[in-house]
Amino acid sequence: MVGKTIKVTVWNEFRHEKTDEAVKKLYPKGIHAAIADHLNAQDGIEAGTAALDEPEHGLPEKVLKATDVVIWWGHMAHHEVSDEVVARVREHVLSGMGLICLHSAHFSKILRTMMGTNCSLKWREVNEKERLWNIEPGHPITEGIDEYFELPHVEMYGERFDIPTPDKVVFISWFQGGEVFRSGCCWERGHGRIFYFRPGHETLPIFEDENVLRVITNAVRWAAPRVRMSTADAPNVKALDPIPKTK
Amino acid sequence: MVGKTIKVTVWNEFRHEKTDEAVKKLYPKGIHAAIADHLNAQDGIEAGTAALDEPEHGLPEKVLKATDVVIWWGHMAHHEVSDEVVARVREHVLSGMGLICLHSAHFSKILRTMMGTNCSLKWREVNEKERLWNIEPGHPITEGIDEYFELPHVEMYGERFDIPTPDKVVFISWFQGGEVFRSGCCWERGHGRIFYFRPGHETLPIFEDENVLRVITNAVRWAAPRVRMSTADAPNVKALDPIPKTK
Amino acid sequence: MVGKTIKVTVWNEFRHEKTDEAVKKLYPKGIHAAIADHLNAQDGIEAGTAALDEPEHGLPEKVLKATDVVIWWGHMAHHEVSDEVVARVREHVLSGMGLICLHSAHFSKILRTMMGTNCSLKWREVNEKERLWNIEPGHPITEGIDEYFELPHVEMYGERFDIPTPDKVVFISWFQGGEVFRSGCCWERGHGRIFYFRPGHETLPIFEDENVLRVITNAVRWAAPRVRMSTADAPNVKALDPIPKTK
Amino acid sequence: MVGKTIKVTVWNEFRHEKTDEAVKKLYPKGIHAAIADHLNAQDGIEAGTAALDEPEHGLPEKVLKATDVVIWWGHMAHHEVSDEVVARVREHVLSGMGLICLHSAHFSKILRTMMGTNCSLKWREVNEKERLWNIEPGHPITEGIDEYFELPHVEMYGERFDIPTPDKVVFISWFQGGEVFRSGCCWERGHGRIFYFRPGHETLPIFEDENVLRVITNAVRWAAPRVRMSTADAPNVKALDPIPKTK
Repeated sequence: MVGKTIKVTVWNEFRHEKTDEAVKKLYPKGIHAAIADHLNAQDGIEAGTAALDEPEHGLPEKVLKATDVVIWWGHMAHHEVSDEVVARVREHVLSGMGLICLHSAHFSKILRTMMGTNCSLKWREVNEKERLWNIEPGHPITEGIDEYFELPHVEMYGERFDIPTPDKVVFISWFQGGEVFRSGCCWERGHGRIFYFRPGHETLPIFEDENVLRVITNAVRWAAPRVRMSTADAPNVKALDPIPKTK
Repeated sequence: MVGKTIKVTVWNEFRHEKTDEAVKKLYPKGIHAAIADHLNAQDGIEAGTAALDEPEHGLPEKVLKATDVVIWWGHMAHHEVSDEVVARVREHVLSGMGLICLHSAHFSKILRTMMGTNCSLKWREVNEKERLWNIEPGHPITEGIDEYFELPHVEMYGERFDIPTPDKVVFISWFQGGEVFRSGCCWERGHGRIFYFRPGHETLPIFEDENVLRVITNAVRWAAPRVRMSTADAPNVKALDPIPKTK
Repeated sequence: MVGKTIKVTVWNEFRHEKTDEAVKKLYPKGIHAAIADHLNAQDGIEAGTAALDEPEHGLPEKVLKATDVVIWWGHMAHHEVSDEVVARVREHVLSGMGLICLHSAHFSKILRTMMGTNCSLKWREVNEKERLWNIEPGHPITEGIDEYFELPHVEMYGERFDIPTPDKVVFISWFQGGEVFRSGCCWERGHGRIFYFRPGHETLPIFEDENVLRVITNAVRWAAPRVRMSTADAPNVKALDPIPKTK
Repeated sequence: MVGKTIKVTVWNEFRHEKTDEAVKKLYPKGIHAAIADHLNAQDGIEAGTAALDEPEHGLPEKVLKATDVVIWWGHMAHHEVSDEVVARVREHVLSGMGLICLHSAHFSKILRTMMGTNCSLKWREVNEKERLWNIEPGHPITEGIDEYFELPHVEMYGERFDIPTPDKVVFISWFQGGEVFRSGCCWERGHGRIFYFRPGHETLPIFEDENVLRVITNAVRWAAPRVRMSTADAPNVKALDPIPKTK
């Protein structure tokens, strides 16, 4: 599928941006729009948006069918996402669609459903420094990223992160206050690829950081479908080789 | 927890055994009772049973709290298992309880929930021969098992099996009709261990086979909890190291 | 590195082809030349050859530096490959060069060195049928391959294959005589990618099979370097954050 | 093999302790003796020692045959370890013997041979603080260890650590100077288990720390052989199922 335009749908709760002045100032059109705008400026990527308060959360079957990669942002309203929409997104991921979960989407229904675990962690909001170490410089997601990059002021997430052992951990974070975190984690489920990326907070300009944006762009390319085919069926099949009769 | 008795609860739909004469004849007290009887004859294992039609499917909080390993058998009534009970079992697995899913439990709600995938496969019922190759002779689950063992007449399950790449595949099956299957698969989720084991069918005396019983017994010992602690909380924590003030 | 031509070096012992009439007839210019010819007919791939009896086995530093992916074929003369050349190839793989080992190269020094294991297996030569099941239809190496493909007459390789658990098993083989085998295995070591592919025999026209050639071509594209940088150095580094003095 | 005494051989270069006054003072009988003394005080463990300057480095076939787990400490004389002894230890690990490599043994021939990688890393000696986060509280190696433990003054090791992705990372370290490190890593090779544990330095009393000693003791129990059988042979085998004649 090389050369094809990658269609991205950036999903957002889009609540903080309406109710919190600080967030509104930082992301006036919403975090989803900020990320989509950046992606639309990249070669071969076409990004749209969807939000919780749209019908079917903006993710009807028709949209998902036409989407290569979903980026998910949620925080305060995970429980308002309908199980039906989560099940629909899940089927598409298993069929080959990519899924990228950002920051507080660690607790989203969709990530917890794909992982089978609680995705719990420790957290702290004192605007400390984070340094993300690139431990897989050969991985497509870290292309163009140096051996580490820093974010001067972040919400901290600390281990133990309750996730299945990732196929590949690409970033491990160091926090000024003393914690560590597996900040960039890759999995495959069904035919789809899933990336969790830690940075991002609604009250900090994380999604203006060029390294963060670069990683998200790389992840979109990495998570783009290789195939698109359902894993739901369990066919009854005929024998391929003769089976000798037994008495 | 060495030396402690391992408490097992063998769960069964227990429907076939009531409605199908052939099954009733083979497992008059139910498949769950057959497995529990075998386990109760082993050193250091104490097995009880639970069934779909009991209140809360026989798996109220009190039972799960006192259970080290759940063995799951289901086939025709997966959809009748309540989401609430599945969520309860899931929390206990993440907290450290072991889970062993047998044969058609590949499509159980609990396995699909723990895996995040569809757990689909190919299948055929012509009573062909299966040969299970032991590809991890050093693994606790294969203790006492030779380089392979055979089952003369089985229902066939064939790849592709829609599961997350297992931490360890301990058996790969060869079928007379031409398929292969990852028949013994190990995962860890949260603090719990999960084992899927392919053999077993309600109309065949699979659970009288000494190798099958041996593997189940070994799996019980392997899956017994190392710890028992919830992964549900996401605590807000104080910094461990001083964070220099920034203007 | 998309769009760049991938430079392949196909290495061969090139002994059978000189001493055995049957092999000579099948692969008159050598197995390496047969594979290179096929690759040279593909878009974006440029393949050369190297052989045991050339100086430095045809793999001096200059050649490896200019090579993206090495394909390795060996059988009767593994022990004649010099440790120095193996160490050189190993450094290049760790630096990002791809390595594809075919069939009897399971016992090559280079694969055993990269794996750290003995890479032993069972074998039999009775020209039986093999069916390779594609268990990862979404993987780049299986692109264009159906749910299985067959080879009518092969040398059999059976489990247990003494390898580290692969990152991904893409093919599992079924053999007429009753064995199974992990026939397509992927690993990453350092920044390099390694693929082991089972099919291939010097006295059978395996490397004329279109599925086998397709997999090798796909594997070349998958194994092409993402980066090229040494992992040999252990630098002494300065602290990035201030370390409070202790008395 | 439950209940059996675990026989450990603690291997040490034993050079620093003879030439460096500070080391001699800290470990008068050598680091190996300090670790062996601790292990000998534990239930069910019997530890001996071996050193570089003994005949065959203290690791003749007879000793290895009677050893369940080898603990390896080396630093300045890795290159003096003979390839023959390394090959012998490697065969025993593949056959089921456990191997625990401590601190600067990341660069030992035996670990690099088992891993197939360079095992390089960053380092710094300014006696900074290390905090080891226990990210697998359910793993046998972390039994009795809290969610983290600290070492007040250490030599720093930082990522990227050039190792194959571990089966399980049990500790991730945070360093005062700003780095992170996968400090407790588990692998299986052949039938043997391998654990790398970062802490330890010849001029610091790391091997008197009760958490460090606890982890080493746990690791000995985890790495004890489940089986002991060679993986070296590649047997020619007969068909198990009939192979129809082809013309």
